[in-house]
Amino acid sequence: MTSTRDRILDTSLALFNQHGERNVTTNHIAEALGISPGNLYYHFRNKAEIVFELFERYEQIVAGFLSVPDGRPLTWEDKIGYFEAILESMWGARFFHRDLGHLLNQDTRLRERYGDFVRQSLDRGLRVYEGLRVAALVEVDDDAMRALLVNTWVLAASWASFVQSLVPAERQNEVLDRTLLRQGIYQIICLEAPYLRGEAAAHLEEMKARYRVGSGDTLGLLFGAGPSS
Amino acid sequence: MTSTRDRILDTSLALFNQHGERNVTTNHIAEALGISPGNLYYHFRNKAEIVFELFERYEQIVAGFLSVPDGRPLTWEDKIGYFEAILESMWGARFFHRDLGHLLNQDTRLRERYGDFVRQSLDRGLRVYEGLRVAALVEVDDDAMRALLVNTWVLAASWASFVQSLVPAERQNEVLDRTLLRQGIYQIICLEAPYLRGEAAAHLEEMKARYRVGSGDTLGLLFGAGPSS
Repeated sequence: MTSTRDRILDTSLALFNQHGERNVTTNHIAEALGISPGNLYYHFRNKAEIVFELFERYEQIVAGFLSVPDGRPLTWEDKIGYFEAILESMWGARFFHRDLGHLLNQDTRLRERYGDFVRQSLDRGLRVYEGLRVAALVEVDDDAMRALLVNTWVLAASWASFVQSLVPAERQNEVLDRTLLRQGIYQIICLEAPYLRGEAAAHLEEMKARYRVGSGDTLGLLFGAGPSS
Repeated sequence: MTSTRDRILDTSLALFNQHGERNVTTNHIAEALGISPGNLYYHFRNKAEIVFELFERYEQIVAGFLSVPDGRPLTWEDKIGYFEAILESMWGARFFHRDLGHLLNQDTRLRERYGDFVRQSLDRGLRVYEGLRVAALVEVDDDAMRALLVNTWVLAASWASFVQSLVPAERQNEVLDRTLLRQGIYQIICLEAPYLRGEAAAHLEEMKARYRVGSGDTLGLLFGAGPSS
């Protein structure tokens, strides 16, 4: 059975993702759960505490998948696994990256924690790339690897905001959002494409086709043509 | 002589960049200029109008440098010119990209205009990359070129926010900001490095050294070590 505390977190996350954290109050959350505001405040002092715990959940999810398996070399299928996990985690916490500056300005504790999270995630990402290099799936020197990793991070973390900035308000909906988010994975694949070798290089076109949205256009919303919605 | 209208825009831009648009009111702007709020409202109905005109200025700056020179092939020095111009324009309008989602949510007209700006800039960017390809300074197929351009755009537009999210509040200052912004150019150079050929490839290490901040680390704030400040 799910505890009230967990139900508050689940509902808050859904409402934040749908409407934006700024447009959701603790009263909205209590109402959606059918509990009293007093009951909600018994579990969380304020909205910032809910955001902080949701961030901790997100942190754990990323730490969970951003690691190298023990005792066997990485394969190109592992790469697909990382991409899917990145996609899911970005989607699951999209309210967070869309409004990051605002959330960090509101809460010094969250800002510090977020900085640590980025540094730890980049360190984990380095180990993954090193694993891919050992498995001869990528060929890249240390400097280029670090730059590639930072670029991948910025791209993954910024993609939801970028997409949202391009979609007119009246066309924003979850289906389009999710479709365009997949395109973020396509963009990450293109980012690392020049460094892929062996099985990973051999499956490049397959991976690109899997995440590409539309045909003649990288994003649909860019370079003139709009997506068919 | 600078008109009152232009002085309002200049002062607003400086205040927005320094404190963030959200923390600056029209009263602050009038006070900084030594004019009455009534005089300011004579020129601009509200803060959103000031933001919109500052965006139009920014648009013109980008359109001004993102073009291919007539009658001669592009050179690798042109590439440096583009990088410097990107850096300057990003720095000059840093308040805008740092708080883009918020600004676009407030103003439907700005959202539409921004979407057009991105599409036009990507089209211009495509022509620049085509010019570099004709000059045999890059080797890249059409699909990879589009993906590269979108990645470059997202990276350039997101870099200021990314950097800001990592710097603890008490260490944020203009010198550090500007230094870290230069690192954004280093990251863009690394993004396109695999595609460079000829003179551009020959000058790659020189270009990287020119924009790189610190020595052993991509960003200073990442991968453990902090910048010496």
